Amino acid sequence: MHAVGLVTEYNPFHNGHRYHLSQARELTHAEVVVAVMSGNFTQRGEPTLLDKWQRAQAALTNGVDLVVELPIFMAVQPAHRFAAGALELLAALGVDDVVFGAEHPKWDFKQLVAAEQNFTASGFSQYNATFATQFNEQLKNQTGLSLTDPNDILSFGYYKAQINERLPLRLHPIQRRGSQYHDERIEGEIASASAIRQAVLEHGDFKQAVPVQTAQQLQKLQQVPSWDAMYPMLRNQLIQAPVEQLARIYQMAEGLEYRMKDAAQRNLSFAGFMKAVKTKRYTYAHLLRVYLYTILQLTESQVSDHLKRPYLHVLGFNERGRDYLHSIKKKVELPLLTKIDQNLRDDLLNLDYRAGKLYQTFTPVEQDLKHAPVIVKGVKE
Amino acid sequence: MHAVGLVTEYNPFHNGHRYHLSQARELTHAEVVVAVMSGNFTQRGEPTLLDKWQRAQAALTNGVDLVVELPIFMAVQPAHRFAAGALELLAALGVDDVVFGAEHPKWDFKQLVAAEQNFTASGFSQYNATFATQFNEQLKNQTGLSLTDPNDILSFGYYKAQINERLPLRLHPIQRRGSQYHDERIEGEIASASAIRQAVLEHGDFKQAVPVQTAQQLQKLQQVPSWDAMYPMLRNQLIQAPVEQLARIYQMAEGLEYRMKDAAQRNLSFAGFMKAVKTKRYTYAHLLRVYLYTILQLTESQVSDHLKRPYLHVLGFNERGRDYLHSIKKKVELPLLTKIDQNLRDDLLNLDYRAGKLYQTFTPVEQDLKHAPVIVKGVKE
Repeated sequence: MHAVGLVTEYNPFHNGHRYHLSQARELTHAEVVVAVMSGNFTQRGEPTLLDKWQRAQAALTNGVDLVVELPIFMAVQPAHRFAAGALELLAALGVDDVVFGAEHPKWDFKQLVAAEQNFTASGFSQYNATFATQFNEQLKNQTGLSLTDPNDILSFGYYKAQINERLPLRLHPIQRRGSQYHDERIEGEIASASAIRQAVLEHGDFKQAVPVQTAQQLQKLQQVPSWDAMYPMLRNQLIQAPVEQLARIYQMAEGLEYRMKDAAQRNLSFAGFMKAVKTKRYTYAHLLRVYLYTILQLTESQVSDHLKRPYLHVLGFNERGRDYLHSIKKKVELPLLTKIDQNLRDDLLNLDYRAGKLYQTFTPVEQDLKHAPVIVKGVKE
Repeated sequence: MHAVGLVTEYNPFHNGHRYHLSQARELTHAEVVVAVMSGNFTQRGEPTLLDKWQRAQAALTNGVDLVVELPIFMAVQPAHRFAAGALELLAALGVDDVVFGAEHPKWDFKQLVAAEQNFTASGFSQYNATFATQFNEQLKNQTGLSLTDPNDILSFGYYKAQINERLPLRLHPIQRRGSQYHDERIEGEIASASAIRQAVLEHGDFKQAVPVQTAQQLQKLQQVPSWDAMYPMLRNQLIQAPVEQLARIYQMAEGLEYRMKDAAQRNLSFAGFMKAVKTKRYTYAHLLRVYLYTILQLTESQVSDHLKRPYLHVLGFNERGRDYLHSIKKKVELPLLTKIDQNLRDDLLNLDYRAGKLYQTFTPVEQDLKHAPVIVKGVKE
């Protein structure tokens, strides 16, 4: 069966996502739409508004045939690693094409990837600038272009992964339609996910921009998942753990552990803490990811161990998705998991399991152990 | 100056405490009353209703002249260690007499302490009974008596410490008056601290049983400190830390780390967690203490290191207390601390500091760093 793959977060699933997936189907004439989706924490290191099962359900109800989780050690990563992880899973799932939005789909991304070969180490030596800023300075010198828009950055990541890992995937960047990622207002039926999240936080009106089911789930939220609610756990970890232990956390570098411990000792609110930690050196997203690794006590060695052992955790499917799973079952080279038992909990899936337990700050629903995939009857054309 | 010492928690300070300290003064004809007091966590491992500064203030306003903190590694301990730590500090402070309540003040506690010499290891081999139960079985065999009342147990601890450490202290057990520790109702002006805590939790009437100031402080509480509010931090630590790390926590033994991790994974409420962990082997208080050590990440080696380096952290004094401090200053062999700087925070006082940061779950007040002692003007007779 001819399958098209999508790389998604669906935080939350909205009308733009529905439009995007119908485009993907049209463009590629694929029979099956397969989405790889972040779990309960996004690439930027934030808890999702709805849990992964609710989001898988929304995706399946609105045109996706199969949803597979992007494990936390692949999802909560800088854009290029997020992109590489997602494409690795899509390739493992036997997908032929990948369709994704870009702000500049006409750019020659292969040429941009090639330009990176000529980057110099000295171009990354500024201590008071983020990695991304220094990356773009070098890219501009080489090509005259800058990767400043989020979907262009991801697109670059997809091409880079495809080239470096020689993935047998056809890539299709398409123009993003309607509101841009950074737009903060909802106008019409298509709005950005960030505008919708903002409206949810402010109890504004977001119904026109999301499918009915998502609107209902969002309206039922007792507490909107946010870093504010997780901060007491982060703060306690930073205060109680010795700096030598904090230094072993994944992506903790350049003495950031001292800065974070000091800020935790002084600040009772997450806003105050973030203000105390933030410098020009780090983006918000980078810091949020390090905060999350810290709460989860994910060490460098745990993450690198798990990165070597990816798997396919199936969150849900419809009948077409099930047929597709059957058709690829014998060829798939990664573990294909539909139900998590105690062995998986303690080993292969341990990091996702622990992240799910943290996510229970926001929901009583068990996120992994013995959770059956979402099955949606009937196939929506 | 002739000083009498008291071992206290003042959780909260109530009329019974006021009565007890006037008795202590009368009985010993002491000029100065010195109280050693638990900090923000009690011997039983619970957060105190009011912080240590509020409780020191109440004590000083009601007849105590000098309040010194019992460090967390001495306070949050089984009764005999709590008693030994408190007496060590009182002896270091040059106190002559110690007055304490007992349910059976006429008992020959020295003889009971001597009886312990004849206890056998096989008498502690029952896996499904607490240490205290097995201790009492042996004591009863030797002497015909059992230590079942909390103040008798502490009294035994004071005598044991005095004898073993050859402390130059005169001990005076006196009859506890009015309600017993376990009484749950408030009748009259003297009530037990536990009855008062219960009334505070249930928004009942406790005013008659406490001084005006304490009543006002208790009425202002936004959130009554409890384990429920600390549970998310305990749960996260139990889920995220590997069992090998949990096994190094002070007092973690007999595989309790596995039992606690499993219970944390399954329970979102503290009540459910406690129910899942509790066995006949452990008292509630023992478990609460282990939970607290776990949140604070206190290891066996950290606690034994700090037990070797006690200090006297002065929480407050009145004029008489200040005179007394002057009179003993040159003779005191332990560090006498009136203000906590960053060196003390990171070294000698580190465990109290970390406990104070945890206690900020319930109050925005910084508990140690640069906190000046409470000074009460005038001397109340």
